[in-house]
Amino acid sequence: MCGESVQLPFMQADVMILHGYYRSSAAFRVRIALNLKGLAHSHAPHHLRHGGQRDPGYLKLNPQGLVPALEDGGRVLTQSLAIVEYLDETYPSPPFLPDNAADRAHVRALAQIVACDIHPIDNLRVLRYLRDPIGADEATVQGWYNHWIALGFDAIEAILADDPRTGRFCHGDAPGLADICLVPQMVNAGNFKLDLTPYPTIRRIFDACMALDAFADAHPAKQPDAE
Amino acid sequence: MCGESVQLPFMQADVMILHGYYRSSAAFRVRIALNLKGLAHSHAPHHLRHGGQRDPGYLKLNPQGLVPALEDGGRVLTQSLAIVEYLDETYPSPPFLPDNAADRAHVRALAQIVACDIHPIDNLRVLRYLRDPIGADEATVQGWYNHWIALGFDAIEAILADDPRTGRFCHGDAPGLADICLVPQMVNAGNFKLDLTPYPTIRRIFDACMALDAFADAHPAKQPDAE
Repeated sequence: MCGESVQLPFMQADVMILHGYYRSSAAFRVRIALNLKGLAHSHAPHHLRHGGQRDPGYLKLNPQGLVPALEDGGRVLTQSLAIVEYLDETYPSPPFLPDNAADRAHVRALAQIVACDIHPIDNLRVLRYLRDPIGADEATVQGWYNHWIALGFDAIEAILADDPRTGRFCHGDAPGLADICLVPQMVNAGNFKLDLTPYPTIRRIFDACMALDAFADAHPAKQPDAE
Repeated sequence: MCGESVQLPFMQADVMILHGYYRSSAAFRVRIALNLKGLAHSHAPHHLRHGGQRDPGYLKLNPQGLVPALEDGGRVLTQSLAIVEYLDETYPSPPFLPDNAADRAHVRALAQIVACDIHPIDNLRVLRYLRDPIGADEATVQGWYNHWIALGFDAIEAILADDPRTGRFCHGDAPGLADICLVPQMVNAGNFKLDLTPYPTIRRIFDACMALDAFADAHPAKQPDAE
């Protein structure tokens, strides 16, 4: 089943198409980025739990068979962080990264704690492999899931709490790349009710983000393919 | 055990310090990047299998307790991709990324297939968790390890083989960010003897990289802490 474009009110002939899935937190990142930049886009949902990302039509677009992918004109872009940086370079306002190299590295590192060291280990395909062929039961899978989030959040909380660059958001008083990654991961942390008490800074920043339409409108529950 | 700086012949007072471990493929990426840029650096090894990355002294530098971290003047940078992009922005020649946004996204996506979707799932701490508490035996751990490399390499091979931008290296005829990530992953693929027959393009690019001193000198076996 290849995803069908969902016609949104602001649909245009040359509008970007986001291939995603409402529950994919990597697609969630790109939804936030598109909203923050104010970029019109349509949605092409692929039902990951039904194998939609393995449809031959979609594999031609993205041989990795994962979401998200973004079609922009004739181009197909993959990997959420690469897409978000592409959007930032192509549509510079508002910026997702600070001006100087050291601060940019700081923001990218925060984003990568989520995007490299939490999310991939807890991804749907990994949890499925834990269940079969490994044979882990649900309690073990849930323990695994929360373990990796907690390890990553411990680090992010320590970094954010100690760094004078932390502001209303992860870096200063405007949302950027780190917030774009952190918010979907916080939503995922609710799946198996991770105790968020140890993360007051993360919780505060999450609340500040979710008060913005760009983040709130990107929430899984608000997507056209939400069940 | 906090890592000790190893004095290299080109050691200078203000030289950068790379906190790493010879077998860490994320540290391997940064070693290649430093070599390609021709940047003097010293090594502070942390023995991951003996828990060196959890030493309180190191945790002060990097609360995530992972390698690599790079000290540059008073700054501590973490997360290998963020470090490599920092080096590229701070020392632009030779460049690790192409000029235009679409090509940059292409190269970053290739790098992130390795850095997000292969390496973190096969990391030492994840393999350890599979063994204990999950109780997976060695055959299961090895199957897991090769499974995620093969899935990622299938995608990278398909993308590289089909894309006219592929040259002697992942993008054109000079090594860059994608090669910096691909080469250490190829070395890891030897750990449990993944069959590399299906990946002729990856193998060809690996050989082209390893013919360069910047890559060859960064190999785990050549590091001061190699056992």
